Amino acid sequence: MMRSLLFAGAGRADLVAKLPGTDADAVVIDLEDAVPEGEKEAARGELPGLVASAAGARVMVRVNGAATRWFEADVEAAVALPIAGVVLPKAERPEEVAALAARLGADLELVAGLESARGVVAAEELLAAGATTGYFGAEDYIADLGGRRTAAGLEALYARSRVALASRLAGVPCLDQVVVDFRDDAGFAADAEAGRAFGYRGKLCIHPRQATLANRAFGATPEELARARALLDAWERAAAAGVGAISFDGQMVDLPAVRMARDTLERAG
Amino acid sequence: MMRSLLFAGAGRADLVAKLPGTDADAVVIDLEDAVPEGEKEAARGELPGLVASAAGARVMVRVNGAATRWFEADVEAAVALPIAGVVLPKAERPEEVAALAARLGADLELVAGLESARGVVAAEELLAAGATTGYFGAEDYIADLGGRRTAAGLEALYARSRVALASRLAGVPCLDQVVVDFRDDAGFAADAEAGRAFGYRGKLCIHPRQATLANRAFGATPEELARARALLDAWERAAAAGVGAISFDGQMVDLPAVRMARDTLERAG
Amino acid sequence: MMRSLLFAGAGRADLVAKLPGTDADAVVIDLEDAVPEGEKEAARGELPGLVASAAGARVMVRVNGAATRWFEADVEAAVALPIAGVVLPKAERPEEVAALAARLGADLELVAGLESARGVVAAEELLAAGATTGYFGAEDYIADLGGRRTAAGLEALYARSRVALASRLAGVPCLDQVVVDFRDDAGFAADAEAGRAFGYRGKLCIHPRQATLANRAFGATPEELARARALLDAWERAAAAGVGAISFDGQMVDLPAVRMARDTLERAG
Repeated sequence: MMRSLLFAGAGRADLVAKLPGTDADAVVIDLEDAVPEGEKEAARGELPGLVASAAGARVMVRVNGAATRWFEADVEAAVALPIAGVVLPKAERPEEVAALAARLGADLELVAGLESARGVVAAEELLAAGATTGYFGAEDYIADLGGRRTAAGLEALYARSRVALASRLAGVPCLDQVVVDFRDDAGFAADAEAGRAFGYRGKLCIHPRQATLANRAFGATPEELARARALLDAWERAAAAGVGAISFDGQMVDLPAVRMARDTLERAG
Repeated sequence: MMRSLLFAGAGRADLVAKLPGTDADAVVIDLEDAVPEGEKEAARGELPGLVASAAGARVMVRVNGAATRWFEADVEAAVALPIAGVVLPKAERPEEVAALAARLGADLELVAGLESARGVVAAEELLAAGATTGYFGAEDYIADLGGRRTAAGLEALYARSRVALASRLAGVPCLDQVVVDFRDDAGFAADAEAGRAFGYRGKLCIHPRQATLANRAFGATPEELARARALLDAWERAAAAGVGAISFDGQMVDLPAVRMARDTLERAG
Repeated sequence: MMRSLLFAGAGRADLVAKLPGTDADAVVIDLEDAVPEGEKEAARGELPGLVASAAGARVMVRVNGAATRWFEADVEAAVALPIAGVVLPKAERPEEVAALAARLGADLELVAGLESARGVVAAEELLAAGATTGYFGAEDYIADLGGRRTAAGLEALYARSRVALASRLAGVPCLDQVVVDFRDDAGFAADAEAGRAFGYRGKLCIHPRQATLANRAFGATPEELARARALLDAWERAAAAGVGAISFDGQMVDLPAVRMARDTLERAG
């Protein structure tokens, strides 16, 4: 369950140290967008201290993209530390996701960013290649297309919808886009409700207040919990009886549906 | 032509008996969503009487999905009765549509529901596999994604658009989503106009009032009729002259375009 | 760079003669939608005089679609004249785009119209087959689907988004939909801003006022110029050093991205 994933730049030790005290379900120390080119190596060098200072939280590290010259060293530094997972931005090739997943093994999470033309087009394959969670990055997607973000956000609606569909097809929960203005609580809450309606399971956050709001928005309703429980019951009864295929609510139940139902159950609290 | 397809649950003999008196172009006795699990067999047993009581209408039966344990017996019961067609909910695999189409033969209609992640993704193939009409089910689609329906409906816009496109590509007219609040005439009329704008040819209805409103919304305009007539004229002249391929309005005319034009002509009234 | 592409019908010599005096980045003498069936040959006969009267402008000719009986003669007439390029409406098959591109050679531009169900579905392949620019035609697309245009335009949002994505994937700049009411300056400006947000690089225009407005809307911002310059710098440094693959802003840089960046640089003025 990851209703809120809260980012802090690797250059902001003050913010990183505050991450464990927030409501965020998981937190990210960011080596990518938050760190200028000239400071990448220095930021990586600070990583052990930063991870230590965030201890107590479910800590992830966002490495630089697989196509960059920092990627290898970033991953090496991250996996040597007591972290919960790695965030891979701008995923575009299923092979790069699969290779990173193999390297992380079963104990570390892999959050894949779908935030470019090619990433959105290949979203289902990228998620299915080994991601445990995905996210849709509207700012980078629209920049890649040469467009501009607007308040209404219709320019990102197609990609946001397509990633939500890919999330269900792959059975990998996805997190919704950033709200840049972190002082606009009402705007964040409305955008979270919208993302929830699309089928997103949580939201990228850039301020502790947003994490609190995201947790509120992405809890499951009693009806959703009941539906998920019934689906999992049917699935487990079938498995116990040695039945290969079952239906639920008129549809064949596939493994992705089972994974999504398990994610829903974890939202009970 | 199916501007309005009006549903009544198989458990509601009172409503089924009223179907012939409504304005609906076609009506459905529903064995699926309207019937709880424990009452499926009983409802099927009532089918002969229900179909008889709906005589005079163009009567269809919605069977349970192809993945369910009720499907086979539902179809068997339905095709033994004097019905106009079968509605297959939650279609996901072209083979299941093709098999049912073969079983129904040329005299019975087959309405395929596109209302799940996999159904929307495969919409064109599903329609082309033998459906005579399709429909987009927003409620089930969004539930399958783990999302929520909102009044504005942006969460379903992508899938609603994609099914409308698939409808044209396959040359199979499709019906638009349900409006759950059957007392909201203005809301229904607005949603019908929207569906009409997307290219839908009719609408699922859950109340006789909605059927009347749908018929009003989905009639063809004089311009649309003229365009359809001109396309069919060009097509028939070419066929008479033994010409294999023709263009209309600057585009190559394909068989799907011809089928859609015929559907438009039937809306003349 | 083509922020504005201004159309005048081949039957309107008076309007064609005024094209060089407008602000339009490029202009089109239209043999297709603007000319009724019975006048196609006569309009083609006027082409030499029309092209001469538009001298001084970057003049293109919109021929009739590749599936029509006028296409061959239209292209032959157009390429014999001192024009800048050809506009191919309702492109649907990559082979037809490739064949026309081969015929036009490197010196003439080829603008491909994506304005039908099949054209939108194949947008990336059509653009990549040899188009130098593309455009999205909402009116024809929605007519092909049997839908209707509305003021809000949600019925075209999916296709408009999909063509913008295809534009980036193919690295071929695309122009956005027509605004039919040419007296509505505010409506045009708003629609141009929206298209700009989606990633479109310019707009189809049907009146000189629209060309002026489009030029204003589709200029690049200082940030966009800086991003494009940095990407091209990285690309050229890598080429000079014999490095095959580079990343920019965390993503692998592909040739389409380079082409789009060059297009952005040309908008500096």
